[in-house]
Amino acid sequence: MISITSRENPRFKILKRWANQGRARRSAGMLLLDGLHLLEAATAAGVVLETIVVEAAAHNKHTAWLAAHGDTETILLPDRLFAELADTETPSGLLGFARIPAPKNEAPPDADCVLLDGVQDPGNLGTLLRTAAAAGIEEILLSPACADPWSPKALRAGQGAQFLLNIHLHCDLAAFLRSYHGQSIATLPDAPQSLFNAPLSTPAAWIFGAEGQGVGPELIALATQKLSIPMPGKIESLNVAAAAALCLFEKVRRKELGNL
Amino acid sequence: MISITSRENPRFKILKRWANQGRARRSAGMLLLDGLHLLEAATAAGVVLETIVVEAAAHNKHTAWLAAHGDTETILLPDRLFAELADTETPSGLLGFARIPAPKNEAPPDADCVLLDGVQDPGNLGTLLRTAAAAGIEEILLSPACADPWSPKALRAGQGAQFLLNIHLHCDLAAFLRSYHGQSIATLPDAPQSLFNAPLSTPAAWIFGAEGQGVGPELIALATQKLSIPMPGKIESLNVAAAAALCLFEKVRRKELGNL
Repeated sequence: MISITSRENPRFKILKRWANQGRARRSAGMLLLDGLHLLEAATAAGVVLETIVVEAAAHNKHTAWLAAHGDTETILLPDRLFAELADTETPSGLLGFARIPAPKNEAPPDADCVLLDGVQDPGNLGTLLRTAAAAGIEEILLSPACADPWSPKALRAGQGAQFLLNIHLHCDLAAFLRSYHGQSIATLPDAPQSLFNAPLSTPAAWIFGAEGQGVGPELIALATQKLSIPMPGKIESLNVAAAAALCLFEKVRRKELGNL
Repeated sequence: MISITSRENPRFKILKRWANQGRARRSAGMLLLDGLHLLEAATAAGVVLETIVVEAAAHNKHTAWLAAHGDTETILLPDRLFAELADTETPSGLLGFARIPAPKNEAPPDADCVLLDGVQDPGNLGTLLRTAAAAGIEEILLSPACADPWSPKALRAGQGAQFLLNIHLHCDLAAFLRSYHGQSIATLPDAPQSLFNAPLSTPAAWIFGAEGQGVGPELIALATQKLSIPMPGKIESLNVAAAAALCLFEKVRRKELGNL
C-alpha cells in the first residue's frame, strides 16, 4: 500500500484530475468507481481495477476487501485528500479507477437495443441504463450529444448496470436505423397508437430522446412505429427514464404473460 | 420593479437564505421556482407568486411575462447577485418565490394514493411525483424521512407535478394503512406474485421505499399485496422511480384495455 500525504504528489494530482475533470478522465479512458457497491459490480463483471484508493479513516472497515484485491495498486489517503477525489456528499472511503470497458462487439443490426438521442442528464441516463439491463437488453447506442455514461454520476444512478451492457458511444443513430433488421420504436406524445396495445415484435430498437426536445425529427421519420403512452393525468410528459421503463417492460410483461 | 445592487440589502439576504438553506426556506413555508416552465406550472395551478426575481441580463427576454405579473413584487438583480440565488448551472434568469401549497384535504382513506417511505433522493422523488400525476393519482403521503418535495431539485425533477398533487408531509404511513379502505401494495424483489398478473382493484395505496433499503418491515407487514416486478436481466433492483412508473401505469394500462 502506498501512502500519499501531499497534495503535490504527482500520482495524487493525476487521480484528482481524473476525479474532477470529466474530459481528462475520458481522454485517459478511465472511470472512477465510488463505493463498495460499484466496485463489486465492476469486478463481478470482469473489470480489472488499476488503482484502489482508500481513506485512512475507512481503512479498517475495508481490510477484508482490500486483502482480496492485494495485487492491485492501493493508495492510502488522509481524509482531506480523499475528499478531493470523492464526488458524493457522504463519501464511502473507498474508490477505484479502471479502464472504460470497450463494447464486446459492434452493435448488431438484429438485436434488441436502446438508442439514446441526446439524453443529457447523467442521473436519467444511468437510471435508464439500469432499467435496460433489468429488462435484459444489452446493446445501447448513444448519440454524441448524450451525457457520459461512465461519469461518476451516471455510474451511481446506473448502480453498475453499465458493466452488464455493450455501450456504444458517439453513434450515428440514423445510419444504424437505416440498416436495422427489426421494429424501431419512438414514443411521441400525440401518436394515435398506444404503447399498451401496439404490435410489438423482436428484435426492436427503442429510441428515447432528450428531456424537453424528445427524439429528433430524422430519427422519428426513420422509426417504423410511433407510440404514445396514455396519461390520464394533467401532465404533458413523463421523465425519459420513466417512459423508457414503461416501454422496455411492456415487452417483458407480454413475454411473461405469453402474449409475445 | 425594485432594483437591488448590494449583497448587504436585507431583502436580498432573506431571499438568498431561502434559496440556499433548505431549512430556512421550509420554516418560512416558502418555495423557489427556477425558470419559466416551473413558474407557469405553479401559476396555472393557482399558486400565487409573492416575489419575482429577474436577472438584469435576462430582463428583456421576459418583458411580456413580467408585464402579465405586474402586480407581483419584482426584484431586479445584477447577474452576480442573481447567480447567488439560482441553483442550476444554466440559470434561466427568472425566479419566483411562493408559499408552499397546503394539501386541499386530509388524505382520504378511500382514494388511490402513493405512500413514500424514506425516498431521500430529491431527483427520484420529483420524478416519482411527476409519474404519479401523469397516472392520475393525486394523493401523496410522505414519511418524515423523505426528501423535501418542494426543494428546488425536487421541483425541477417533478417539472411542476407537485402543483397538481395533494402532498401530505411527515405522515405516519403505518397509521394511514391501518385505516385505509382498499388494497395496499408493496413491491418486494422476492414476492412470488408478479405485478403483471396480480389482482388489482380500486382504491389502491402503492408503497415505495428508500433506495437501497426498500419499504420498511412494518409497512410490508401492513400491505395487503406483495408484488415483484419480473426482471429478466442480471440486475437486483430497479430505481424506485422506474419501479413506481411500472406499478402506477400497470393500472393505467389495464383501464385502457378494459381489464380493470
